[in-house]
Amino acid sequence: MRALNVIGLNSGTSMDGVDAALYTIRPKKPAGPSDKGVPSLEIELVGSLLHPFESSFQRRLQATVAAPSINWEQVCLLNVALGEVFADAALRLMRQTRSKVNHVDLIGSHGQTIWHAPTPRKFWGVEAMGTLQLGEPAVIAARTGVPVVADFRTADMAVGGQGAPLVSFADEVLFGRSGKPTAVLNIGGIANITVLNEEGLAILAFDTGPGNMIMDRAALRLTSQPFDQDGRLARSGRIDEKWLSELKSLAYFRQSPPKTTGRELFGFHFADELLSEANRRGLSAQDCLATLTALSAVTIARAYADFIEPRLRIDELVVGGGGADNSYLLDSIKRYWPNELTVRRHEDFGISTKFKEALLFALLAYTTFFKIPNNVPACTGASRRVCLGKLVQTPVGSIIGEHIFSGYRK
Amino acid sequence: MRALNVIGLNSGTSMDGVDAALYTIRPKKPAGPSDKGVPSLEIELVGSLLHPFESSFQRRLQATVAAPSINWEQVCLLNVALGEVFADAALRLMRQTRSKVNHVDLIGSHGQTIWHAPTPRKFWGVEAMGTLQLGEPAVIAARTGVPVVADFRTADMAVGGQGAPLVSFADEVLFGRSGKPTAVLNIGGIANITVLNEEGLAILAFDTGPGNMIMDRAALRLTSQPFDQDGRLARSGRIDEKWLSELKSLAYFRQSPPKTTGRELFGFHFADELLSEANRRGLSAQDCLATLTALSAVTIARAYADFIEPRLRIDELVVGGGGADNSYLLDSIKRYWPNELTVRRHEDFGISTKFKEALLFALLAYTTFFKIPNNVPACTGASRRVCLGKLVQTPVGSIIGEHIFSGYRK
Repeated sequence: MRALNVIGLNSGTSMDGVDAALYTIRPKKPAGPSDKGVPSLEIELVGSLLHPFESSFQRRLQATVAAPSINWEQVCLLNVALGEVFADAALRLMRQTRSKVNHVDLIGSHGQTIWHAPTPRKFWGVEAMGTLQLGEPAVIAARTGVPVVADFRTADMAVGGQGAPLVSFADEVLFGRSGKPTAVLNIGGIANITVLNEEGLAILAFDTGPGNMIMDRAALRLTSQPFDQDGRLARSGRIDEKWLSELKSLAYFRQSPPKTTGRELFGFHFADELLSEANRRGLSAQDCLATLTALSAVTIARAYADFIEPRLRIDELVVGGGGADNSYLLDSIKRYWPNELTVRRHEDFGISTKFKEALLFALLAYTTFFKIPNNVPACTGASRRVCLGKLVQTPVGSIIGEHIFSGYRK
Repeated sequence: MRALNVIGLNSGTSMDGVDAALYTIRPKKPAGPSDKGVPSLEIELVGSLLHPFESSFQRRLQATVAAPSINWEQVCLLNVALGEVFADAALRLMRQTRSKVNHVDLIGSHGQTIWHAPTPRKFWGVEAMGTLQLGEPAVIAARTGVPVVADFRTADMAVGGQGAPLVSFADEVLFGRSGKPTAVLNIGGIANITVLNEEGLAILAFDTGPGNMIMDRAALRLTSQPFDQDGRLARSGRIDEKWLSELKSLAYFRQSPPKTTGRELFGFHFADELLSEANRRGLSAQDCLATLTALSAVTIARAYADFIEPRLRIDELVVGGGGADNSYLLDSIKRYWPNELTVRRHEDFGISTKFKEALLFALLAYTTFFKIPNNVPACTGASRRVCLGKLVQTPVGSIIGEHIFSGYRK
């Protein structure tokens, strides 16, 4: 391993556009992977941007992903068209960071998830399970002149894994060096947690349940604000303990990990039902937000108490995602946590939580490039460690300089 | 570059099954690519096999490729299921050749072509053209423990090429060392030709028109034999010169290269029309076969006279494909060729024409692995040379041994 400038690219399920971030990644001395297979790396953010999809492109993309049927030509053209948009994002970032870094060595592109169904089934007599991330990496490599690693989920699934969560690997690399058990909690729409043991290995990762999705929906409907800034309203309200106790007995919270959830269960529909119920109970906006914030906090803490603490005591939590900006939520998590807890933010480690997925795909590309395995079987269920992704090579020799030049020129 | 044992895998448009062949490829001394960018390689065939698709798998595959609509789940599962079948082919070949070679270093897999439409069009406001080869390489790598390079056509198309023909690269490597202009003619159902200049560079490649497809159809319908063995019947017949002269004036033959054709134009439907016409003309089976064999021969020779000779005189032709076993056809080509011609077969160079496509994909994998560019812009129309394919890495270290063992064990 040696220092490389690596761009990470990702478009999430919301299909807003491409997150792009450029990092310098280098091995810490002593170089090479640690005994336990987690490479010791130094990571420096050079620059980042969000490259939004054109609104008509976004609408068509959302419709096509949801379409009950498509044809082969659409599959091909969508793959190439997404590749062009991802390439544009990379080229914009290369121009933007040109004064700081004059050479990009590698790109890691997750692509756009079109389908992900990690349940094995018989297909024409063959056991198969499916995932599809589009955004042709050969197009990204051609436009930028930079080698690209892409399509990270198939290799984990080929060895029996769920192809998710992949973020545990980044958590190991970023937070696994403290020598003590640590949990990494991402509070996005849904909250998910990665548990690192004292050796820095991820031993478990799962979705705890709602993160911000329900609180944000309540804030929007009750106060016309997109979210409850720093939890101010919730902090001034009173929790309806009886209702909270009913809510936290939902089946999902009792289910043992590994488990994942999403909008299907904890989306707008569920939020709107809760708001009707709050109304029936005569709760004020403050009381309603207090109770729903408590629901996120208590289910996170309960997930720890029920599924993690029996294996590993955690007194250090690293939080990320939009929820990490809500100090009332963080205070509540600490309050419900069954033991003393230190809470730190990704930013305390110099990590921008906004571009954590882009960083993940940069890290996966970097390690696959050097043939370091980078799936986490304990979290995905894979039977063994593999190198995720496929590498599009660019030719050796002077021609590479030309490619990069023509890339920048665009 | 260094010596590697490389498996090539391919399933053609007939969808019979997977051709698999194992080669030892090593750089000739002096090592490294030649001045002109064609690497100088020594190639030795270790073993080969055809791994047929199960008949129900084949039927469903043919139906799915032709289906007007599919869904995303089918796309995913078909990709994985094909990957499993390709992996089975590789594992069978690894077992079969185990006594000769105890280690396979690399696999090059073309996959199954599902769609190929190299015409640029606007898709959602983005210029795109499409190709799709399925057969998940991450599955092949997982089952065999061997790194895999796959999906060769996208990179050429990303730089404006047609993604075909790719075989010109193999022709350069195999036959471009004589120091004199050479043409390589493959007589399959359709006949295609690659023209190599005195430097061994492919300067042109195109389909000349019918190869065996029409003759074989005629033999089957007139004599119930699958083909006219060594052209014996044709040799004993008389060519209907007037009809031949009409046939050779078809538009396709006059069209300038680059051009490709297939079953759409010169398939069963066309053959059956010719047989009706032969019947109207009162031709015997022998006379009909003589005329149709002459049609293949004369259109090959005319393609040379019209499109190649003006740029380059060719007096050395290397033939391959089923038609290379038909000595009457080869004699006819020589007769129509406007100058003296030496005809040699692939086998004279130690190349099995049956596994030439498998060899091509082994060669493409080998060169991409070492970052040697391997598309041929003069033949595909690409704007520059790139490394075709995507590399699925396997992890460094002892774990690789385990993978190979578990692969063989199956």
